[in-house]
Amino acid sequence: MIKVFVNGFGTIGKRIAAAVLKQDDMSLVGVAKKKPDFKACIANKFGIPLYVFSEKDIEVFEEKGIKVKGTIDDALKECDIVVDAAPKKVGMENKKIYEKFDRKAIFQGGEKASIADVSFTAQVNYRAALGKKYVRVVSCNTTALARIINEIMRIAKIKRIRGTLVRRAADPWEVKKGPINAIVPAFSVPSHHAKDVKTVLGDINISTYAVVVPTTIMHMHVLNVEFENNVNEGDIISSLEDARRIIITPSDMGLDSTATIMELARDLGRERNDMYEVVIFREGIKVIDKELWLSYAVHQEAIVVPENIDAIRAMFEVYKEPEKSIEKTDKSLGILRRL
Amino acid sequence: MIKVFVNGFGTIGKRIAAAVLKQDDMSLVGVAKKKPDFKACIANKFGIPLYVFSEKDIEVFEEKGIKVKGTIDDALKECDIVVDAAPKKVGMENKKIYEKFDRKAIFQGGEKASIADVSFTAQVNYRAALGKKYVRVVSCNTTALARIINEIMRIAKIKRIRGTLVRRAADPWEVKKGPINAIVPAFSVPSHHAKDVKTVLGDINISTYAVVVPTTIMHMHVLNVEFENNVNEGDIISSLEDARRIIITPSDMGLDSTATIMELARDLGRERNDMYEVVIFREGIKVIDKELWLSYAVHQEAIVVPENIDAIRAMFEVYKEPEKSIEKTDKSLGILRRL
Amino acid sequence: MIKVFVNGFGTIGKRIAAAVLKQDDMSLVGVAKKKPDFKACIANKFGIPLYVFSEKDIEVFEEKGIKVKGTIDDALKECDIVVDAAPKKVGMENKKIYEKFDRKAIFQGGEKASIADVSFTAQVNYRAALGKKYVRVVSCNTTALARIINEIMRIAKIKRIRGTLVRRAADPWEVKKGPINAIVPAFSVPSHHAKDVKTVLGDINISTYAVVVPTTIMHMHVLNVEFENNVNEGDIISSLEDARRIIITPSDMGLDSTATIMELARDLGRERNDMYEVVIFREGIKVIDKELWLSYAVHQEAIVVPENIDAIRAMFEVYKEPEKSIEKTDKSLGILRRL
Amino acid sequence: MIKVFVNGFGTIGKRIAAAVLKQDDMSLVGVAKKKPDFKACIANKFGIPLYVFSEKDIEVFEEKGIKVKGTIDDALKECDIVVDAAPKKVGMENKKIYEKFDRKAIFQGGEKASIADVSFTAQVNYRAALGKKYVRVVSCNTTALARIINEIMRIAKIKRIRGTLVRRAADPWEVKKGPINAIVPAFSVPSHHAKDVKTVLGDINISTYAVVVPTTIMHMHVLNVEFENNVNEGDIISSLEDARRIIITPSDMGLDSTATIMELARDLGRERNDMYEVVIFREGIKVIDKELWLSYAVHQEAIVVPENIDAIRAMFEVYKEPEKSIEKTDKSLGILRRL
Repeated sequence: MIKVFVNGFGTIGKRIAAAVLKQDDMSLVGVAKKKPDFKACIANKFGIPLYVFSEKDIEVFEEKGIKVKGTIDDALKECDIVVDAAPKKVGMENKKIYEKFDRKAIFQGGEKASIADVSFTAQVNYRAALGKKYVRVVSCNTTALARIINEIMRIAKIKRIRGTLVRRAADPWEVKKGPINAIVPAFSVPSHHAKDVKTVLGDINISTYAVVVPTTIMHMHVLNVEFENNVNEGDIISSLEDARRIIITPSDMGLDSTATIMELARDLGRERNDMYEVVIFREGIKVIDKELWLSYAVHQEAIVVPENIDAIRAMFEVYKEPEKSIEKTDKSLGILRRL
Repeated sequence: MIKVFVNGFGTIGKRIAAAVLKQDDMSLVGVAKKKPDFKACIANKFGIPLYVFSEKDIEVFEEKGIKVKGTIDDALKECDIVVDAAPKKVGMENKKIYEKFDRKAIFQGGEKASIADVSFTAQVNYRAALGKKYVRVVSCNTTALARIINEIMRIAKIKRIRGTLVRRAADPWEVKKGPINAIVPAFSVPSHHAKDVKTVLGDINISTYAVVVPTTIMHMHVLNVEFENNVNEGDIISSLEDARRIIITPSDMGLDSTATIMELARDLGRERNDMYEVVIFREGIKVIDKELWLSYAVHQEAIVVPENIDAIRAMFEVYKEPEKSIEKTDKSLGILRRL
Repeated sequence: MIKVFVNGFGTIGKRIAAAVLKQDDMSLVGVAKKKPDFKACIANKFGIPLYVFSEKDIEVFEEKGIKVKGTIDDALKECDIVVDAAPKKVGMENKKIYEKFDRKAIFQGGEKASIADVSFTAQVNYRAALGKKYVRVVSCNTTALARIINEIMRIAKIKRIRGTLVRRAADPWEVKKGPINAIVPAFSVPSHHAKDVKTVLGDINISTYAVVVPTTIMHMHVLNVEFENNVNEGDIISSLEDARRIIITPSDMGLDSTATIMELARDLGRERNDMYEVVIFREGIKVIDKELWLSYAVHQEAIVVPENIDAIRAMFEVYKEPEKSIEKTDKSLGILRRL
Repeated sequence: MIKVFVNGFGTIGKRIAAAVLKQDDMSLVGVAKKKPDFKACIANKFGIPLYVFSEKDIEVFEEKGIKVKGTIDDALKECDIVVDAAPKKVGMENKKIYEKFDRKAIFQGGEKASIADVSFTAQVNYRAALGKKYVRVVSCNTTALARIINEIMRIAKIKRIRGTLVRRAADPWEVKKGPINAIVPAFSVPSHHAKDVKTVLGDINISTYAVVVPTTIMHMHVLNVEFENNVNEGDIISSLEDARRIIITPSDMGLDSTATIMELARDLGRERNDMYEVVIFREGIKVIDKELWLSYAVHQEAIVVPENIDAIRAMFEVYKEPEKSIEKTDKSLGILRRL
């Protein structure tokens, strides 16, 4: 049993903690929280040990009736690995503490690639993480790109990929973030995602552009892929359909938007309506000569969760074969092969 | 075992079907669907028998690979009671069919009160539905009003209630409905909710005004209640805290909006993030002299679900005591007494 | 000619500056800006002298090709009065500078009432501002309340007013502010607006509750007014129709939301689609016995602009009669008596 | 004086009518309206003759106090040309009437290209419309594409263009249209825009993909252009800067979104805050080797207005030179060469 401590209990942290609890080869040491808010109560309610940043915080939490198990130092002593789920860029600061306790650590995609030995997406480079001390699971957008492109590369030689990332502006609970009625382009061109996906896939010809739109539920990517040779639309579809953690909507079933995809996740009984899979719109797949257009929805809150679980297994070399870890993770989370 | 057929598998129908499956004194005959869309696949996936409107529809569904058990007539023959979850005003048409098969029926709040023998909210008038043939579960907004006012009436004599209903404009999956950036007042004054709540609570002095706003997740009501005599804020809070199907947020825990309430529902592990309880904002409760202000969030998709279950029990006189049915329903759905 | 300096060139400042330019008894010394952004270019383009906060800022602006006339000190020396249009609470700091230069000053509603000798709404208490040194024009929400209640008070004795303020969350250009998909209640109950309107109207029985919704274009208020005696709906409507700076939509003309009101402002040819008038929805006016319900839209960006112009005239005693100033201001801005 | 009748007084029609009024070589016969709503009152208010569809409609309008000049037949008799501004696809029906009266007609981009002799964008193919009887001004999205690509083609040989069109979901006043919180992909791939732009530009290698997002104010396009040879970013920028009806935002001036572009239009004093120019984000322009990325905002309500005016002149051969007509139109509407 690998003892896992999750440092952070926000959008990503709480999901990773829940996923760890579903693994029979891992145990959850607990989670760390900064603020004594309702999410802390949820940890208490579900019996998840709660750790805080200082002795003083223990008092603050307990005054509000929230039970605390100890400080982060206590958790780090007890765990085999820490999954850092701190806000963007805080991971780099946290790393120093993890080093002090000589613990393996997983970082999220908000950190620079240089923070870790490897940038990771299970289906692409699981083996690269075997036995590593520090692994970075790439961001939701990059994970989606990596999964999709990795599959496409299997069946045809890619010449170039150009993508537009239509990003959700805030997570559902983030009521202070906008815009309410605007489209906001990102001014770094290409957007960092293109560069980031190369940390996983290696040097491919990809460039991306990002815009932010007033929605909270999912990102949508529009990809244009040019191949060296003609490709067959059916082959592309079969390949993507067979791939793990990617699903294609059936045609003509009313799955016409990010909102209906989220509704599907709810109807599937997914916890927190999490859609771990990249969801490609079937009607939006089109091959014209050597060129593929496709669009897919990315559930920013959930998609990296199985990746974190696999990363843990790779780092402890529980399985040397990616398939075994992925299969186990997918089963535990109810991830679908097909709709 | 009461054999229940749910006619409709949209926002409300699918939730009632799921709730029926959780009752040990009921069985689900199946659900009816009009369109062969992804929700039909979900029914198949979870082994919920699917009924359609005509023999011809059977073909249409099966061509798309969706298994169908029979037509609505077949289901009506088999069931003891039908829960009508058809779109607004279609229930009145459907009633004729239910009469033909001589089946008990529950209608939803989109129908006129005259469709049924009684308009129903379990905590208020469970006994009025005992043995009845036709019961109407009032709408989400009316249910919330009925629950809240019923509790307040227990502890103080109400002089008048004036409420503003800030309504969500569409359900999350309804991507064709707006507004995107506007506030739209309802032009029927008082709004129908005030009149409707009297079908449950009897003649009280209430008037309401409704506006529609660009959000999909919950309604919010702002109530101003004037009492005949001075009331104590603590008494009001205790009474509401003790009431079933009403919860009060803890203060200062970050539960500051409809979005964080929905996040709470997700964190609680609720299926489809359903919040069956009316959720009152603690910081927004204020008593000044003989007057109470409060605001609460209403999950339009979920709040009437337990009411439908209780209505079934009342109509078959499974329990004569409301408490027994409510207790059983609440346990089955994980409804909380307190956060 | 009263020489007016507008300290700030944001949502409110730029509109007041534009309004000053339209008065034949005022001249615009210029406006002050903190950031060298596109609004500064607009000032240059329209020949509005630009002042900055320090000698160093002059360089910063000029490096970007923006012409600057001088510093705030220069402008204060030159002007007779300064209209403070700084962000909320900055006005209090600024007052010290205005005192140093011994200049009359107008503050906006984001400041505390105590900052000025009088809190002002032209139609209500113009005379109270005659000759005053410091005047505070109340906020958009308070101005709307003051105008409406003042008219209603003319024709009937008000017993109590209870209002729900459904507030826009951000101005159209504020792309960083949310929420995107939530209703956020204000937790100060009653909301400060009720208290604030008494600084203008004196001691009336009013209480308000505020919620914030995901829209950028206008606030909407829902008022419930109880009278001492029966009132006639026609009388209320006539009175409001005759009032200045209040218009009532014609019935059945498609003016059904804040969005269509803004469209009307555009169609009227209003600069920046400013709607200086409070706009009451005709279909939403209802008198039942001694009680009035009404809802109206408030253009948060524009409604206080004419008030600032009148405040200037009152402070210099240009006219002792409110009607003369209001008439002149309304004519200059194209404010309508009726649609 | 060319006598122009505008059939329709909605989003596009009312703007074209206003633009016609500003031309010294045209007169406005009037506009036609179907519904007696506030826009009809606006026509009355500004003295724009109003025509209706039948004798019966005259009564309907006049009962509501709206003055009507006559029926569409009357207007067609009187005019030299009709600008059809009817809803999508209604133009085809209307054409029969225009033929009956033997009138020249302009159609909008919602109609099929085959409705007219030429599909038109002034800067691209003004001459093709000289003396023509029927001209179709392409849609807002196509107009923007045509303007931009036409300029880029001037300075470098284009190999291929791939674009993602992030479309606003509704016009500001359309409160019934959604989505409120979703991204909705268009399922026709390539989207019709790519095909449509070829009706203006001829056969170029272009493909586009469209998604709809919850905003009302502007579209945003993201274009990726591949050239045959290396191009210089400075050359691209100069060329676009020099082009008419295209403006580039200055860097670092806070113009960071569609919302700030609309704010700029308001600050510029534009009627109805119309932005006739395509607005390219300077910070989002990037050339990498033979490839250009750029994004720009398209004001869907306004961008085709000057095109309609130029089309009228071309059809009557007022000027044979496009530059003369464009210059005149731009001056009349206050269209900028640069910010």
